Amino acid sequence: MTATPSTLAPTTVDFAPPRAAGAQGKSGGGELTDLGRLILHCADQPGIVAAISRFLADHDANIIESDQSTSDPEGGHFFLRMVFHKRDLQAYIEQMEATFEASITDQFDVTDWSITSASAPKRVAVMVSKYDHCLLDLLWRARRGELPVQIGLVISNHADLAAEVRSFGVPFVHIPVTRDTKAEAEAKQLELLRGNFDLVVLARYMQIITNDFLEKVGCPIINIHHSFLPAFIGAGPYQKAKDRGVKLVGATAHYVTEDLDEGPIIEQDVVRVSHRDDVATLERRGADVERSVLHRAVLWHCEDRVLRQDNTTVVFA
Amino acid sequence: MTATPSTLAPTTVDFAPPRAAGAQGKSGGGELTDLGRLILHCADQPGIVAAISRFLADHDANIIESDQSTSDPEGGHFFLRMVFHKRDLQAYIEQMEATFEASITDQFDVTDWSITSASAPKRVAVMVSKYDHCLLDLLWRARRGELPVQIGLVISNHADLAAEVRSFGVPFVHIPVTRDTKAEAEAKQLELLRGNFDLVVLARYMQIITNDFLEKVGCPIINIHHSFLPAFIGAGPYQKAKDRGVKLVGATAHYVTEDLDEGPIIEQDVVRVSHRDDVATLERRGADVERSVLHRAVLWHCEDRVLRQDNTTVVFA
Amino acid sequence: MTATPSTLAPTTVDFAPPRAAGAQGKSGGGELTDLGRLILHCADQPGIVAAISRFLADHDANIIESDQSTSDPEGGHFFLRMVFHKRDLQAYIEQMEATFEASITDQFDVTDWSITSASAPKRVAVMVSKYDHCLLDLLWRARRGELPVQIGLVISNHADLAAEVRSFGVPFVHIPVTRDTKAEAEAKQLELLRGNFDLVVLARYMQIITNDFLEKVGCPIINIHHSFLPAFIGAGPYQKAKDRGVKLVGATAHYVTEDLDEGPIIEQDVVRVSHRDDVATLERRGADVERSVLHRAVLWHCEDRVLRQDNTTVVFA
Amino acid sequence: MTATPSTLAPTTVDFAPPRAAGAQGKSGGGELTDLGRLILHCADQPGIVAAISRFLADHDANIIESDQSTSDPEGGHFFLRMVFHKRDLQAYIEQMEATFEASITDQFDVTDWSITSASAPKRVAVMVSKYDHCLLDLLWRARRGELPVQIGLVISNHADLAAEVRSFGVPFVHIPVTRDTKAEAEAKQLELLRGNFDLVVLARYMQIITNDFLEKVGCPIINIHHSFLPAFIGAGPYQKAKDRGVKLVGATAHYVTEDLDEGPIIEQDVVRVSHRDDVATLERRGADVERSVLHRAVLWHCEDRVLRQDNTTVVFA
Repeated sequence: MTATPSTLAPTTVDFAPPRAAGAQGKSGGGELTDLGRLILHCADQPGIVAAISRFLADHDANIIESDQSTSDPEGGHFFLRMVFHKRDLQAYIEQMEATFEASITDQFDVTDWSITSASAPKRVAVMVSKYDHCLLDLLWRARRGELPVQIGLVISNHADLAAEVRSFGVPFVHIPVTRDTKAEAEAKQLELLRGNFDLVVLARYMQIITNDFLEKVGCPIINIHHSFLPAFIGAGPYQKAKDRGVKLVGATAHYVTEDLDEGPIIEQDVVRVSHRDDVATLERRGADVERSVLHRAVLWHCEDRVLRQDNTTVVFA
Repeated sequence: MTATPSTLAPTTVDFAPPRAAGAQGKSGGGELTDLGRLILHCADQPGIVAAISRFLADHDANIIESDQSTSDPEGGHFFLRMVFHKRDLQAYIEQMEATFEASITDQFDVTDWSITSASAPKRVAVMVSKYDHCLLDLLWRARRGELPVQIGLVISNHADLAAEVRSFGVPFVHIPVTRDTKAEAEAKQLELLRGNFDLVVLARYMQIITNDFLEKVGCPIINIHHSFLPAFIGAGPYQKAKDRGVKLVGATAHYVTEDLDEGPIIEQDVVRVSHRDDVATLERRGADVERSVLHRAVLWHCEDRVLRQDNTTVVFA
Repeated sequence: MTATPSTLAPTTVDFAPPRAAGAQGKSGGGELTDLGRLILHCADQPGIVAAISRFLADHDANIIESDQSTSDPEGGHFFLRMVFHKRDLQAYIEQMEATFEASITDQFDVTDWSITSASAPKRVAVMVSKYDHCLLDLLWRARRGELPVQIGLVISNHADLAAEVRSFGVPFVHIPVTRDTKAEAEAKQLELLRGNFDLVVLARYMQIITNDFLEKVGCPIINIHHSFLPAFIGAGPYQKAKDRGVKLVGATAHYVTEDLDEGPIIEQDVVRVSHRDDVATLERRGADVERSVLHRAVLWHCEDRVLRQDNTTVVFA
Repeated sequence: MTATPSTLAPTTVDFAPPRAAGAQGKSGGGELTDLGRLILHCADQPGIVAAISRFLADHDANIIESDQSTSDPEGGHFFLRMVFHKRDLQAYIEQMEATFEASITDQFDVTDWSITSASAPKRVAVMVSKYDHCLLDLLWRARRGELPVQIGLVISNHADLAAEVRSFGVPFVHIPVTRDTKAEAEAKQLELLRGNFDLVVLARYMQIITNDFLEKVGCPIINIHHSFLPAFIGAGPYQKAKDRGVKLVGATAHYVTEDLDEGPIIEQDVVRVSHRDDVATLERRGADVERSVLHRAVLWHCEDRVLRQDNTTVVFA
């Protein structure tokens, strides 16, 4: 392995299999292959839970966890997440999908749903600039098996973190971005990302994402913003926090949408600061919150715990 | 109304109807009468959720919220709480109970379950000594309609809080306790409590509860202990915390069982302290945590969110 | 005592002496009379701490606590708070002030300073509309002796809380405010407040304070805003929080200045919420944070722990 | 670099100079060389602050921060920490110590004091077993310059973390410990540690430290215990927490003394857990608290913010 960062974007990326522990999450591999998750979002209506419970029972699937939420008792949205145990799930998941499609989606007009195996880690790419705290925390946790993800690629507009990333056995690709090369850089990024990943994480990637990129990337993007949104939108939030004299600084993980810092919020947290703390100290203390908030958002997303409704989220955590 | 505390325990207590707001909780009265809660605890087994969902659908009841938990995917305990909407529930609740008994409890060997109306506030008695912070917080919240309870009686071994309690329209009964009159005092307390209340709250009642009292009172008892259990069991926890030099002090709300401070924990919280804080300051800061923790435990219990398993709790909050 | 609220603003208010415990704070009266506080704000310069320490030593005053802060090692602002013990302080405080004025303020160009006795509670007036949670918490803490204040007056634009306030032995004056009577109402308020109080607290007073009022009232005003500023400035912050889908709601206590919700922040805190919480629930959970944040801000202000620099605060807590 | 761990303890360890950033803390090197810290602990007495302030002023040292604490206004212990700015401090620090010794320690009977330069990072050795989360967090923060330390050695009784540690440029020495080789292993450890380090950190080192080791190592030892002490002393705290059904799990950083888990507490924190969390999840969530608590304790110790009094600490943080 070479530690020299490459500025040539390869057209194909080899995704090495993750370490055994990293891919398997908290439980042993044998158990996880029997665990599935069913999530859905539809208009609320009587009988939906009964129908889905019956659907699972009919497939000899035992419900382990169930979370549901209704935005309004009469006429609201309905959100459901069920974790179920079914022996040898992987052999039956497509058959279950077909039955679900035939029996449930028509009857209850469900459009947003999925059935997934807990043993299939989400394929994740991370985009980052120079700050390493969020990136390293994700790499550490993935390696320890704390996140059900396979981090298959890190893209950065700076070369600084190449050796660090590659020491985890994760490919690092350097794609510089300047005002003039923005379109070209995004094209390179898309070439690497499209079809290869289930999730892109912006772990302090200090570049604007264009709508064109958003439309083409083909998977959700989670961003960490270094303030408690909607306070201090945009650049330099820690300086703004110092100027305003707030007593807590925070961080926000959200899905990226067309409007900067306006996407659906997944998770937020704060830490106490005081008049003694200069901007550098706010940044340091905030960095701990950022990595903590981002890892929770990624964890919850990858465990299929997050459902979107307009510009907000339902998080079954 | 007289402010003079009475040491004569009346043999009957008149329970004035609560203020409209106090009895109805967050929603309007009309809506609450249509909301019900079904909770149960049984051995885990396939089909239980489907059966209960079908049971509710058969009664035209729409599930609003559902929480469930399984202690182990294969062969564990199963816990369920469902909130459902059924028009004119109160007219049908007994019929639902009968059907549930006939169709579910036999088939799934359920022993611990209940179906309740959200519009029926729990009848609560509070026992207290001299500290007013936990008691007042409960009385305030009940008056504001934040707790689905009807506080019908306060019993104290001291006369100090009589006027305060009565200003809320709640009867206050003074039952002094000395070493020689302990048995007699408990007999008086039981005379007032048995059959009249769904819950007894010890809001800093500085007396040992005997096993005899526990067996006879006929309803759960929630106690607030002024430490983060199991640290600092027994008397004087703030002094012990000061001596040990801890950096956080806490409080614990738990069900009372035979063993002092060993009952199932419902809720806990902590607050940061420092070397500057003397014992009096720890007590003051801890008092805020005590009232906060106790009100959450009472709220969750009265919303049927707490299920017990051996010496622990499942809290669907 | 009558519970009928009066809409006639009296031109003089009788300030009943507070209960013994309320005026004395945590320690016994004898000790507090020997405790003093010296605070100052000036340009940073070598020798200032030595000079003040010598000043106190020269007066046989023993420093108990000392906090200082410098905004920049070279050429910044300097903030100091010292608590000292001097026997029979009250007999010497004016002499100390004179010596300080002669020896320190000239030499170090100090303009903002005070020497106060810890045994003199701040005289506080509270303005409130209909929400009682912040008001009751302040009244209750003052009665317990947890706040070094003498709450001498409550002014409200609604009559609802009259009986509640008066049960604490505190005068309640009802001054209705309409668009047409705004100026007249402020004149009545000022008649009651000017010269009589050291601090005015807006404990959820839902009216705009005019600049004219601010200039004339003659003492600081602390407001509680029901959001984590600068997020959700202005009216309806809980509805805005629900719409934005934030995962924490907060409260902010700040000094009132000309710009709405833009004054120097004294204290802030947050509480976790979820998609399950409707706006009414956000309000309830937020209310607990509001009363907690406001009481800390009032406590710290009244213990001379807060110094202002431009639009921020130094809080020695 | 070889990744093969060595079981042969070298008799001398080469301490490579740390990276520039690691040694210098948050500010630039030029500034830090002018910053000093004076800490002391003595019996409380009038005039001590004045004398020390005069001492600093006499040396043209400008006080930047000052914290002091008195355990009792009359006759208690007195604790002081001052950060001061003196140009070219390093050239004068020994002269200042001599003057302090001559003028202050005699007059005020001070026995416990130090004057240090903020530009001299503490020399730290870490002992660890197999868990990497606390160790990695310390190594990473040291590399980022967030901790004013020079981590010069990691000793482990397992070989697992050798490559990880060495990738930070820090020597890793494997010293296996069995019941039979305990004494021999401690002798090897002491050979490496004595005289070379200012602090030893036990970052989840799962071995008992003997009194003999404690006496001989010649510097303080900080341990991280994976519970909120004094709850769950000893082995298996997360299993004990699960069995007891607590609603928060925590971690405690403390100085190591003769009695296991009984030393002076420096820092503690907790995180919320629920009935859904199995022991493995408690361990994962607790691990985040452990690394956070330990890094704060190490930071505060190394910034001379922690003073000991009997079995408690004064922390000026």
